[in-house]
Amino acid sequence: MTTLLAVDWGTTSLRAHRVVDGVVVETRSSSDGILTVAADGWQDALNRHIGDWRREEGAATVLSGMVGSRQGWHEVAYQPLPADAHALAAGAVMIDAATAEAEWGPVRILPGLCHRDPADVMRGEEVQVLGALGALHRQSGRFCLPGTHSKWVDVDGGRIIGFRTHMTGEVYAALKGHTILGRLMVGEADDTAGFAAGVAQSASTAGLLADLFGVRARGLLGELPETGLAAYLSGLLIGHELRSAMATASTAEPIVLVGAQTLVERYRRAAELLGLVTHSAPETAAALGVWQVALAGGWL
Amino acid sequence: MTTLLAVDWGTTSLRAHRVVDGVVVETRSSSDGILTVAADGWQDALNRHIGDWRREEGAATVLSGMVGSRQGWHEVAYQPLPADAHALAAGAVMIDAATAEAEWGPVRILPGLCHRDPADVMRGEEVQVLGALGALHRQSGRFCLPGTHSKWVDVDGGRIIGFRTHMTGEVYAALKGHTILGRLMVGEADDTAGFAAGVAQSASTAGLLADLFGVRARGLLGELPETGLAAYLSGLLIGHELRSAMATASTAEPIVLVGAQTLVERYRRAAELLGLVTHSAPETAAALGVWQVALAGGWL
Repeated sequence: MTTLLAVDWGTTSLRAHRVVDGVVVETRSSSDGILTVAADGWQDALNRHIGDWRREEGAATVLSGMVGSRQGWHEVAYQPLPADAHALAAGAVMIDAATAEAEWGPVRILPGLCHRDPADVMRGEEVQVLGALGALHRQSGRFCLPGTHSKWVDVDGGRIIGFRTHMTGEVYAALKGHTILGRLMVGEADDTAGFAAGVAQSASTAGLLADLFGVRARGLLGELPETGLAAYLSGLLIGHELRSAMATASTAEPIVLVGAQTLVERYRRAAELLGLVTHSAPETAAALGVWQVALAGGWL
Repeated sequence: MTTLLAVDWGTTSLRAHRVVDGVVVETRSSSDGILTVAADGWQDALNRHIGDWRREEGAATVLSGMVGSRQGWHEVAYQPLPADAHALAAGAVMIDAATAEAEWGPVRILPGLCHRDPADVMRGEEVQVLGALGALHRQSGRFCLPGTHSKWVDVDGGRIIGFRTHMTGEVYAALKGHTILGRLMVGEADDTAGFAAGVAQSASTAGLLADLFGVRARGLLGELPETGLAAYLSGLLIGHELRSAMATASTAEPIVLVGAQTLVERYRRAAELLGLVTHSAPETAAALGVWQVALAGGWL
């Protein structure tokens, strides 16, 4: 029986998975993202979250995500494209044994990916894509990972050959929280009609900056109720993201959505309104991807 | 000698002009926008800023801008398109004499404009366009009024026939102040090379949400210095605005830029980088426009 402890440690969250013989048997989530960890607190934080797993199993521990950024435990250099599980394993860094408690043994941090034309970076989503590929028995396709910074990832021959980040989630939060658009809004972005109207508006040729002011104008002129404005803004932004991403698609294959269920469902609805077909990958894709990297690296 | 006191009273600023026989002879600016005025403080605020002008001259007083909004002194209903000076005069509201000090006499507030396909609203810029038309001896053209909410206004036969708002300025402030993009930035948006690179990037087909994340990626990967990132973001947003606005232009006439000199100069540079020809209108356009409305209304 071979056990892997795979920790997806992002800016604002931590998700730890216990993987036994390629099957995710247990998952723990926390909001203890890397921003909550003090400079010398990494080992303690890891102990707090999965110390019991480690002591029981003596398993390999592999971290992915922003924990490998300059703000994380140890900066791990980005790997170039194209990249597969072997490339990620080759780029991993082992935490100095002197800083790890003896009982932990090797703790590895995976690299992210970067490319330069145009400039873009990614940390954590690459293993989710590898895991989704395996779970869906695919070797190619276009993957969408919705979020604060949505990633669109192109895969061919089992390797990541390109990706692009859309700042959709963070732009939504900044506009709702820190511009005049938020002032008319009542409630959250769960109004179905408002969401659909926003997705539809994304077809306009006026440009996103004009469409954004339209959120306010529609509220002022009573075309949308105040309770529908947040959902309208959400639909507008996601619609713009989907249209822009699909405009450069080199494939007619369905989009594979990877991520947390609520957000994936929101993107699925928007895609459906635009006539796009989507598939979904399991939420445990990150752990499955790390398993593949650990196999490729001979760490198991 | 006929005197008009024209006050452009917006959300965050007040600009008062003394106009004698159609010539702007004096201008006062203040940051006392309508948000700084208490519910019963309008008359006092006006007295504080131009009470001396009024007592000397016994002139007509006309207010334009957000002072006519729900958050202003008195809500004045939007007028529909097409609209000219006569339509604005007909839609003006006279402040109840009971609330005005006897010495002031009539104080009028001008309406804004709205249209519904797509929904859009404007308060204050319409008189700037009328003033620019008169100053430049034009009857038609496409006018750009850069700002927190940039307005693009189409004029034909001396009447405003269409307009569109781009939320460029406020989006810039929200992104710089309240997203991860601001964290890498050093200094303000005055780097010429960074600005030009941002304008150039707006030609990409990746979509604005992807281009925005590129601001961070270019910083992380060292493609742009930290001191150039704010200007890059500014150029990117203004470039997107100009491209979107020109994509729907029905005329090949030069764009007429109307507004404060610093911002007009920034837009002129971006337009030049995109191969677009621009003209500039005098900064006193608002006062000249109000003069025309006052003439049309027979208030002088």
